[in-house]
Amino acid sequence: MGDTDALNIPKSSLSRIVIVGGGFGGIALAKALKGKEMQVVLLDKNNYHTFQPLLYQVSTGGLEPDSIAYPLRKVLQGYPDVYFRLAEVREVIPGSKLIRTDIGDLGYDYLVIGTGSETNFFGNNEIEKNSMGMKSIPQSLNLRSLILENFEQALLTDNLRERDALMNFVIVGGGPTGVELAGALAEIKKGILPKDYPDLDTRKAQINLIQSGNRILAEMSEQASKKAEDFLENLGVEVWKDCRVTGYDGKTVRTKTDLVFEAATMVWAAGVKAVSIQGLNAKELLAPGNRMKVNEFNQVLDHEAIFAIGDAACMFSEDAPQGHPMVAQPAIQQGRHLGENLVRLLKKKPMKPFVYKDKGSMATVGRNKAVVDLKHYRFQGIFAWFVWMFVHLFFLIGFRDRMVVFVNWVYNYIRFDREARLIIRPYKRDYSQFKDCKDSKSES
Amino acid sequence: MGDTDALNIPKSSLSRIVIVGGGFGGIALAKALKGKEMQVVLLDKNNYHTFQPLLYQVSTGGLEPDSIAYPLRKVLQGYPDVYFRLAEVREVIPGSKLIRTDIGDLGYDYLVIGTGSETNFFGNNEIEKNSMGMKSIPQSLNLRSLILENFEQALLTDNLRERDALMNFVIVGGGPTGVELAGALAEIKKGILPKDYPDLDTRKAQINLIQSGNRILAEMSEQASKKAEDFLENLGVEVWKDCRVTGYDGKTVRTKTDLVFEAATMVWAAGVKAVSIQGLNAKELLAPGNRMKVNEFNQVLDHEAIFAIGDAACMFSEDAPQGHPMVAQPAIQQGRHLGENLVRLLKKKPMKPFVYKDKGSMATVGRNKAVVDLKHYRFQGIFAWFVWMFVHLFFLIGFRDRMVVFVNWVYNYIRFDREARLIIRPYKRDYSQFKDCKDSKSES
Repeated sequence: MGDTDALNIPKSSLSRIVIVGGGFGGIALAKALKGKEMQVVLLDKNNYHTFQPLLYQVSTGGLEPDSIAYPLRKVLQGYPDVYFRLAEVREVIPGSKLIRTDIGDLGYDYLVIGTGSETNFFGNNEIEKNSMGMKSIPQSLNLRSLILENFEQALLTDNLRERDALMNFVIVGGGPTGVELAGALAEIKKGILPKDYPDLDTRKAQINLIQSGNRILAEMSEQASKKAEDFLENLGVEVWKDCRVTGYDGKTVRTKTDLVFEAATMVWAAGVKAVSIQGLNAKELLAPGNRMKVNEFNQVLDHEAIFAIGDAACMFSEDAPQGHPMVAQPAIQQGRHLGENLVRLLKKKPMKPFVYKDKGSMATVGRNKAVVDLKHYRFQGIFAWFVWMFVHLFFLIGFRDRMVVFVNWVYNYIRFDREARLIIRPYKRDYSQFKDCKDSKSES
Repeated sequence: MGDTDALNIPKSSLSRIVIVGGGFGGIALAKALKGKEMQVVLLDKNNYHTFQPLLYQVSTGGLEPDSIAYPLRKVLQGYPDVYFRLAEVREVIPGSKLIRTDIGDLGYDYLVIGTGSETNFFGNNEIEKNSMGMKSIPQSLNLRSLILENFEQALLTDNLRERDALMNFVIVGGGPTGVELAGALAEIKKGILPKDYPDLDTRKAQINLIQSGNRILAEMSEQASKKAEDFLENLGVEVWKDCRVTGYDGKTVRTKTDLVFEAATMVWAAGVKAVSIQGLNAKELLAPGNRMKVNEFNQVLDHEAIFAIGDAACMFSEDAPQGHPMVAQPAIQQGRHLGENLVRLLKKKPMKPFVYKDKGSMATVGRNKAVVDLKHYRFQGIFAWFVWMFVHLFFLIGFRDRMVVFVNWVYNYIRFDREARLIIRPYKRDYSQFKDCKDSKSES
């Protein structure tokens, strides 16, 4: 090893901060460290930041994938002494202050874990294998392809029960992701399917939203839950509450009760968990959902030089006894705050504890329909929908992304349309198991 | 078989026209047949139309893939008695008026082949295996990923010769595709690489354009060729003329002369050929490049009920002794004209011969740089570039696609940027063969 290491990052007299993950937290932190006399290394397995709150619009043809992705190198343009590497972290060896990645080893002075979360199947391998997740752009594009392929397939059969199963969409999980996806599918059913498939009775397409608890949007106010449910039902979504899905073999969705669905598509939006990292996954370090226990400075338990932020971190506090919600705001605020703390740390000043500012939460159901909970106000309907759009445009990174998303939204709104209903890379689902559906025609 | 066939298309007393391929020709034909008392079936292996002239901008991060794709079902919305099926044609059996597809068999009264063209490797399997094509959206996205992955890989080596090879782009074929791609890469080298990769000497990135003949844009005027070459050389592209590439093992590009390139990327834009279809590929039916010989009504030789249009067809005429150029205009004009002829045919009126209206040709090299040949005028430079943009926006299908492309172009122009430099699906090239590059440092 000469004057650089395996990742070809020059050795420097400055402290090296390695940030793993270019999500909301990692970017906020990198921005806060600009020009602060540190060597900053950002690692991500993708060369772009993903704006996860809009993934469901990619899946439903409302937005192009590139519009909600932003090149990470562009975020770092013009920074002194900052390095990006496209790398996947394999292991952290805290004793040697070293991380192992798929492209080599890298030493650090301070390490920040901002690896976010992935779908939580709660150990159910059958569901993991057969259902669709929606946590990354490729996954969202796969779901988009599958939705469209299902209708193409439905056209080819005369067996009405098979056809119904192909047009049956089961979404598990009544959080914002599930609610927004269900609403978007319902709008497609109403506005696009009859025009695109005049030779198919698309009124029989079903959108089922299944929630294990007794209300959807359980993290929001009861008022928001109630209104969102009304919105969904008006759109024709079937909302099933107090219903726990236990299995899915690719054809039949089984639940704890007698309720059973025959469906070619099950989307699993019932939970997320932090991505666990070898070397930092000892049981005593982790809170439920694999999140790393951190103190009020985002320092990982017993690891002075390692920090975790966002979904990866679980900071117990009075206002968040279970840790902060696994959404963008805590990640952004923690990233920004940690940036200030790292500057203090290197100046040997005491760090300041993190205090979360709850800016509220929101979800959209569809055209003119959203629910917003702020600290002192709650509102639903068209104004909430405008607020939802404005906030999402604001938090999108980059002027081009904002413009393109805006143009698409205006177009979609005016024309009741979603033109990105494109199967760019086919998902190639195996439909053979639907062939043995008993024909309801012959039954009746 | 009941009242529908294997593809679930109802039997009708109307004549059934089956169009294979939703390219420029197929769409123009489908539009011309709207409401003409025929049953029209459009088949395509994709559910979208691809605007091929802008594929190179997807490859170079200037445009999003969905912006140059248009859903075929949307083209057909509101048509009476028209059917789209997502299907790949396997074989045509003219004797039974039947086509076999991957989803079943379909009878026809009249069949129109508009299957377009694919990359022509002229039988060189080594080149086919190791080089990149750019004839479809997935191929263009693969090339985009590879270009970006090459730079990420180049960052990781200290071996200067390996690094140069990773940053060496060889484009074979000096037609519009090769010229436009080379120009775009040169602009990326100049405007984006130094900012994105401050820790890499990106001045050493090379763009080589190789042409077997003695001028690039050989189908255009000598004036256009000369000017395009000047433009490219000013941008830093190395143009090699009278140079025939004979092989590429993934690392070394070999030519008929002593000239050799070590390059991780070779794009093959040196020729296209029509997609050949089992049952219509008898030697006597085909002109060079696999195009089906057709008469002045686009009727395939010896097959009264089968027509071919666009790239799939070769119509010998006085103004086109080698057939028409394999570009959008002949396809559009033939599709439209065949629509009128089919109406005449069904009314038992005589068909009219096709006459090609040459609207000229054009190519762009980059920012403010294009060449245009019209019948009576030739011009180059910034006005030509505006004309090029206007014409491409005009021929793009759909208001949303136009708006989004326009927004991207304005952004790219003002900011000297291309934000879709995203590796959404990694290409995962095997870089191991570059590891044994002799290090030029140790040589010197």
